[in-house]
This record gives sequence, structure tokens and C-alpha cells, in this order.
Amino acid sequence: MITLFDLAAKEPVKTWSLNVWKTRYVLGLKNLPYKTLYIDYPDLEAAEKAGGIPPYGARGNGQPLYTAPAIVDDATGAALPDSYKIAEYLDRAYPDTPKAFPPGSEALQAAFYDHFNEVVSPIWHIILPKVPAILNPPAAEYFHRTRSETFGKPLEQLGPVGEARVEAWAKLKAGFDTLNGWYSKSSGPYFMGETASFADFIVGGLFVAARICFGEDSAEWKDLQTWNDGRWSTLLKDLDKYASEN
Amino acid sequence: MITLFDLAAKEPVKTWSLNVWKTRYVLGLKNLPYKTLYIDYPDLEAAEKAGGIPPYGARGNGQPLYTAPAIVDDATGAALPDSYKIAEYLDRAYPDTPKAFPPGSEALQAAFYDHFNEVVSPIWHIILPKVPAILNPPAAEYFHRTRSETFGKPLEQLGPVGEARVEAWAKLKAGFDTLNGWYSKSSGPYFMGETASFADFIVGGLFVAARICFGEDSAEWKDLQTWNDGRWSTLLKDLDKYASEN
Repeated sequence: MITLFDLAAKEPVKTWSLNVWKTRYVLGLKNLPYKTLYIDYPDLEAAEKAGGIPPYGARGNGQPLYTAPAIVDDATGAALPDSYKIAEYLDRAYPDTPKAFPPGSEALQAAFYDHFNEVVSPIWHIILPKVPAILNPPAAEYFHRTRSETFGKPLEQLGPVGEARVEAWAKLKAGFDTLNGWYSKSSGPYFMGETASFADFIVGGLFVAARICFGEDSAEWKDLQTWNDGRWSTLLKDLDKYASEN
Repeated sequence: MITLFDLAAKEPVKTWSLNVWKTRYVLGLKNLPYKTLYIDYPDLEAAEKAGGIPPYGARGNGQPLYTAPAIVDDATGAALPDSYKIAEYLDRAYPDTPKAFPPGSEALQAAFYDHFNEVVSPIWHIILPKVPAILNPPAAEYFHRTRSETFGKPLEQLGPVGEARVEAWAKLKAGFDTLNGWYSKSSGPYFMGETASFADFIVGGLFVAARICFGEDSAEWKDLQTWNDGRWSTLLKDLDKYASEN
């Protein structure tokens, strides 16, 4: 059985992290059974160490950085973090299942992955201050403190305000227009035509996270759903068959 | 018969433009016969107008911009510029030939195309001042004059010098390291494994242009060939079977 290390949130929210959603979509695409450990941020490092999962990388201060998602696969003994590497691992370990990276697309997917974060970069400063509200109190305190340290200012002051907020939102919309231009080249609903792949899971993960962090009734989420003739809402619905939270 | 509109250069150089190389590679991939018109820059607009080719776009001053490559296809009556659109056209018009954009990769290729120029952006200010030396005198004068206008300074002053030159070259190398990281995900010599596609032609076109514009004996070309364990020299050799200048 595969164990997925996910980040806990307040009820009724379950998976809110865009990165964990990428892994859930991959597991759903492959129809692989798995169970989830929902862990509050302050407990993540200890839980992953106990699971034999190595750190994702190093923090600015040189200390090891533990992140979600991570998986432990009892069938092979594999234990690893990083949604991209997990997807590559699952493609290798379960070769008879649909591929997150269809053969021939691996390098193009890697390039898209690097590029995507840049295209949607205006969203981070807007969305990160929304995160503590969906977390349990100790995790909310942890997230607020660590992110405030990272950005050198209180997290609630990270988001642009007034005219700068309008500009950042417009820049984000322009980024999605670019993304829409690429999608328009596809012959099907997914980035690779009729075949869902990691590229779609990156986009889908961001949209689920936006719905949860902004809130279903927020102006931001309502606006996002209208962009590019509703392409992103449609994509989320198309990806539903690969989505599961257990 | 397809007619390719290319930019003339001084003997013995034939095709030097990276954009025209992209089209040559696509024509070679498809093994489509074609003939070439080599046209000096100042004559390009009149020649393309005479061929019924629409402008690529508009200049900053609103005047129409005519560019190479462009093609006229007598078999269909099509006449168009823009290496990307030409490749899409040839994929559609000759469906039984190998695809520049293999099915399913169209959107990923479009994203890569947009990203590539950004990754290699430090090369433009370094390479553009080298171009007049390979052109015939009227074209050299035209190129120098129009590009000096575009950049607001004499073309020979465009390239960074001293420490800035060293930094720009290092930044270019870092861009190729990124490109190499993506290529490393591929299971074959090409970006899509064993299948050459437009992504490779973009890279190959830049390398041929660099060889010609810097010169075979230049320090720049010698350096470029050593980057990423010679991956780019090897790629150029692999692409040779699709390269032809007629």
C-alpha cells in the first residue's frame, strides 16, 4: 500500500495544497490504492523522518526542509517527497498504469513545469496570506511565522493592496491568457489532447487550491471561473474522475 | 512546388537565419521538395508582396513587417510567413508526412517555444552585432540601420563589454544548463525521445546561426561546443539528416 503524507486543515477542508493535489491526481490517473496521513505543519518533519522520507531540500538557514506531498510505498520500500519526483517514480514503479509523463513528453513536461510557476507567479503573494485561516491553530501559527520570516514581513502584509492589487490580478489574468493560448493548440480537453498528464495536474492543483484558499464565495474564485471562457472550471470538472481524498 | 523565401548572405554562407533553419528542418523532416529564393533584406518586402505573402506583423511605427522565412505552396495556393505557422501549415497540408508537432505535443511545444527565447535571451545582444559582417553590403547597411533604430544605439554598441560581457555569457550558459536539464529527461537524442520535432529545430536553428555568425574559429563557437558535454554539437549532427540548403 502507498501512504500519502498530506497537510491537515480545518474541517471540512481536506486536501488544500496544490502540490499534494498533483500527487492525488497522479494516483487517481493510475488508479492506485493509497491511504493518507493528514499532518499539521509543525508535525510534518517528525512524521516524515519516522516514515524514512528524506528532506525535499534545505532551508535558507541550511536546515533540512520537509514538505508535502511525500509517499512511502510498502511494495517497493520507496520513500520520497516532491510531487514531480513522485510522479516519475510512480511511472517507473507501475509501468502498466497510465503515465503522468506520456512517453516522448518527458522533456516538454519538465520545461512546462518550470515555466508554469513563472506564468502564474502573481498569485503567490495574493494567496499565501489566505492559508492560515484554513489550518488548525498550531499549523496556522507555524505557517504564519515561517512565511513571515521567509518574506521578511508579516504574512498579512504580503499581498499587494489598492492599485498594486489590481495590477497583480491583471498580471495573473494575463498569465492565464498565455496558458490558454497554449491549451488552445491542443486537440482535446487536456494539454496533451485526450490524455490527462502532469501538465494538467499542475493547473488543476492550482485551481483547487485557489477555490479552497480564496473560498467558494469569494470574488477571486468567482472571477477565476469566468476567465478564458470558463476553460479552468471545465478542466477541473474533467479532472474530477482522477480526484479523490481518502 | 514549395518556394522558401530566405535571406541572402555573402558567399559561402547560405542559410544563416535561425528562423529559416527551423523551416528547413521541417521541410527536411517531411522530405518535401522545395526551391529557395535568397533575397537581400532591402528587397524582402517587395519580393514577399509579389509572392502574395502577408506581413508577419507590424513594426513599432505601424508599418507592415515582412520577415523570413515565408513560403508559397503552389499545390495549395497557401502563402504565409512565420516559422511556427509554416510548420503548423505543413503538418496540416501534408498529413502523411512526419509531424513537426507530434500529436498530443502541440500545446507543450507552444509553451516550450515561448519559453525558449527567454532562456537563451542573453545571446541576442551578443550575436546581433555580428550579423552585418555576413551580409551583402546593401543588406548589411539595412540591418545595421534598422536594428540601431530598434535598440536606440549603434548596433556595434549593443553587445555587453568587459565584466558585463562575462556575466551575459555566464547567464547564457546557465540558460543552456536549464535546457540541458530538460533534454536529460528525454529517453532519446531528441527532445521527444527518438522523434525529432519542432522543439529540436528551434535549438538546432540557434546553433547553426551561432556557428555562422560567430564563425567556426571563434572563441564563442568553440566554447558553445563544449557546453553540456557536447550535447548541442551532437544534436546538430543528429539533425544533419533533415538539413539541406538548396
